[in-house]
Amino acid sequence: MHAKNTEQAHNHTTPAQQRRPARQGRRSRTEAHTSGPAVHASPKRQIPVYELLDPEALQLLEDHADWIMHTVGIEFRGDTVALDLFAKAGARVEGERVFFEPGHLRSLCVTAPARFELRARDPQRTVELGGDTIVLMPGYGSPFVTDLDQVRRYATLEDFRNFVKLTYLTPWLTHSGGTICEPTDVPVNKRHLDMVYSHLRLSTKPFMGGVTARHRAQDSLNMARLVFGEAFMEENAVMQANINVNSPLVYDHTMSSALRIYADANQCVCVSPAIFGGAMGPVSPAAMAAQTLAEAMVGIALAQLVRPGCPVVLGSFHSTMSLKSGALTFGTPEAGLVTMVLSQLGRRLGVPVRSGGGQITASNAPDGQAMQDSSNAMWSTLLTGAHQVWHAAGWLEGGLTMSYEKFILDADNCGAMLKLMRGMDVTAEALARDAYGEIEPGENFLSTRHTMRHFATANFEPQVPEAGPYETWAENGSPTAAQRANRRWKALLAAYEAPPMDEGIDEALKAFVARRKAVHQDEWY
Amino acid sequence: MHAKNTEQAHNHTTPAQQRRPARQGRRSRTEAHTSGPAVHASPKRQIPVYELLDPEALQLLEDHADWIMHTVGIEFRGDTVALDLFAKAGARVEGERVFFEPGHLRSLCVTAPARFELRARDPQRTVELGGDTIVLMPGYGSPFVTDLDQVRRYATLEDFRNFVKLTYLTPWLTHSGGTICEPTDVPVNKRHLDMVYSHLRLSTKPFMGGVTARHRAQDSLNMARLVFGEAFMEENAVMQANINVNSPLVYDHTMSSALRIYADANQCVCVSPAIFGGAMGPVSPAAMAAQTLAEAMVGIALAQLVRPGCPVVLGSFHSTMSLKSGALTFGTPEAGLVTMVLSQLGRRLGVPVRSGGGQITASNAPDGQAMQDSSNAMWSTLLTGAHQVWHAAGWLEGGLTMSYEKFILDADNCGAMLKLMRGMDVTAEALARDAYGEIEPGENFLSTRHTMRHFATANFEPQVPEAGPYETWAENGSPTAAQRANRRWKALLAAYEAPPMDEGIDEALKAFVARRKAVHQDEWY
Repeated sequence: MHAKNTEQAHNHTTPAQQRRPARQGRRSRTEAHTSGPAVHASPKRQIPVYELLDPEALQLLEDHADWIMHTVGIEFRGDTVALDLFAKAGARVEGERVFFEPGHLRSLCVTAPARFELRARDPQRTVELGGDTIVLMPGYGSPFVTDLDQVRRYATLEDFRNFVKLTYLTPWLTHSGGTICEPTDVPVNKRHLDMVYSHLRLSTKPFMGGVTARHRAQDSLNMARLVFGEAFMEENAVMQANINVNSPLVYDHTMSSALRIYADANQCVCVSPAIFGGAMGPVSPAAMAAQTLAEAMVGIALAQLVRPGCPVVLGSFHSTMSLKSGALTFGTPEAGLVTMVLSQLGRRLGVPVRSGGGQITASNAPDGQAMQDSSNAMWSTLLTGAHQVWHAAGWLEGGLTMSYEKFILDADNCGAMLKLMRGMDVTAEALARDAYGEIEPGENFLSTRHTMRHFATANFEPQVPEAGPYETWAENGSPTAAQRANRRWKALLAAYEAPPMDEGIDEALKAFVARRKAVHQDEWY
Repeated sequence: MHAKNTEQAHNHTTPAQQRRPARQGRRSRTEAHTSGPAVHASPKRQIPVYELLDPEALQLLEDHADWIMHTVGIEFRGDTVALDLFAKAGARVEGERVFFEPGHLRSLCVTAPARFELRARDPQRTVELGGDTIVLMPGYGSPFVTDLDQVRRYATLEDFRNFVKLTYLTPWLTHSGGTICEPTDVPVNKRHLDMVYSHLRLSTKPFMGGVTARHRAQDSLNMARLVFGEAFMEENAVMQANINVNSPLVYDHTMSSALRIYADANQCVCVSPAIFGGAMGPVSPAAMAAQTLAEAMVGIALAQLVRPGCPVVLGSFHSTMSLKSGALTFGTPEAGLVTMVLSQLGRRLGVPVRSGGGQITASNAPDGQAMQDSSNAMWSTLLTGAHQVWHAAGWLEGGLTMSYEKFILDADNCGAMLKLMRGMDVTAEALARDAYGEIEPGENFLSTRHTMRHFATANFEPQVPEAGPYETWAENGSPTAAQRANRRWKALLAAYEAPPMDEGIDEALKAFVARRKAVHQDEWY
């Protein structure tokens, strides 16, 4: 079980957190108890982190990030509050541009906790961000969905709810995500209400709130307060916000104000620069990594200026593009190198890292390319120590589409990779000396007591049915992995049951949604 | 260019090699010069090797391997020569079983070179095994082939020749392989003649010879001697033999005598135990790794007893199986852990490692599962330092089938992974400071001089055409990656030109094949 007692959590707090001794103390108003799919032990990395670059090379990248911020600076467009905060903190502000002396940004990030909990409605589904815990999440932001039964189409609220349910039912995904797909049948300015309600009502895992306008961020926080209680949220992070940098070197007002709103509410801010090499940054992996670090540190610093000690994540969304066709490309070796190094840079900064990887691809279908890209991206992400992985399931077509079948295939790979992260057991039991006493050379181990003791749990078992022997498979119409996954997501959705929720809370949420929807005219773009 | 001068090669020789100062000295009889597809710099690992287990855990595995060999022993069935060699070396021999004192096997392996060259007919295509070089090869041993135009079918000599050609044309595969697929239209006892001729005639890359009977091994060596010269081969390895252990703990006479024939000829012996956890070894990854090490050390020791200093590779072929359905499974996390650790164990033993990974899958089609399995297996292989990777392209259906389309998809991934192995450049040029002087925040880097300098070479470029934007792709019939790869292999084969070969040598080879075919009655099984 992952849910920690407060003492354990305090062992890992930063000085800033220790100045807030009551933070972990209050109880949530939610009455939920663990229900629904089994709660597995929170996935942990039990193998060494891979270190791609040595400390000297990492220092060069950090120096370069400092150079960018000192020489070029970064713009906060239309956000005088942010500009004032930076000026008061000692940065040089010229118009909307902010410049930092080398080392200054890093010193502003020092109050950010190295690890913290993201509290879930079901306390047993609370996750830690940082340390050895690995938090995987579904895709984020797709306007389209696809499955093998229908062509690609605009996503609806029903699709969104389906992916929340599938995520809830997938043990390897311990975070419900945010805008998994856009519910395009709901007005743009009201989607956040239905999305946050769905995360809260249909799942009990941690989730993300709206960020695309100030009132959407406030609504998201207010809805969470109805479930967790205002006092509890003052002291505990229960949700996360995705703050994208308008790379290169720009924060727009929407994002920087959403950042400030979540930070002020002591909720988790994930700052994600978005760089395709050659467009929003130079084409070289080293420069992409350094620029990502620079841009992310600025957002983390702003969050800490708003509320020292508020939980943050160093995010990144980066990849490559064909510099001949202009096509975006994913799962590429150059992008993988950036992913690897950002995990190293994040550990040196002392904050949890959301990787630029996940299971991402430019493919339009859940085919060989899709899974090759995705597996490649996932390895560079997980082996080098990312704490949180967005887009770990379902992402297709450069993020334009969520695929029901790819979600299932990706979920299997999440489970497999988490098994790998558990490492190799070299205990006496694993060495199986007794088994060698039961067989002669040339005989097989199937019937040894050692095999009997372990056969049920030795190997990770995927949910996508095996293809089976060629002949049987051909008789069955040669179903591809995606076709076999098609059956699986339907079975999962058919078996889904909503977790319980206090009726009063549910009514309060529904009333909030209705009230807020009535305040605004529908906006469709 | 990879081709080394002899001094460089001598820097890395073992004491055993240094006792043979003339080894690198003689010239091959072949007159071939580099021709055909461009020779790339030999792929090198330029990033750190990932260390999964710490030295204490590795020592436990080595101790366990010693325990197996001391307590259970290993059988050499019907090979009195091998048994005599071991007895004379001080091992305890009881009937056909050999037992070793702890540490004895390791001491017998000490004459094996840590790195050596496998000389190619085209000297520029000579590869090093060991060190930082990575040698990738196509699949091995499939009785079937498949492509999208025809159903799965028995492989023919034409298929075999096609895969030799495709491998020749693929820069990322620097080794022509061995029995890429079985030419089932040729009698079993004559296939080796056509296969070795094809490798020698249609390619100029290093290759593997026949092992499935004594005369097949001898024929393979004799054919190579016609090309390279007997004296040259006395001193240089020009070919490799795949020696499979009949795991658990048995060498059959066919394999052990082929091993002795190749070792005696100073050609490279790759010793590969074959373990599916729960069947040919215990179900736990630690035991699989230790047993593989034990079994492989026995073969390596035998090769060194036959000819001290002869080149060897620590091979392994291991994976998992469903202990419920009995189905073999590939690219699994448990198999990946074994792969990782065997690279560590091989480095400690001081010999080059052929990984159990490659791009392997149980899938019957080049679909999402196939590429997910394959990419996962490839990462565990390459990141942990395997020197030689078999089954890096084309392998499908647990090795029963070579797929033309998967070959192309895999080849792209080989190129991508080799790019990753080159690591991240953190030079001043990579940091691109000049580019930041050319743009303002919010502008893009496409037209900066830095992008112009690098756009042509910055990113690895796959050979499988991009899917393109969804709408275009859908108009084109929504081709999967495999369908796009279908066009690629046909284009490659259409463009293939055989490398030149001295006519006299070619005639001699053909005459040898004809003569040897005439000696034996056809055998079809």
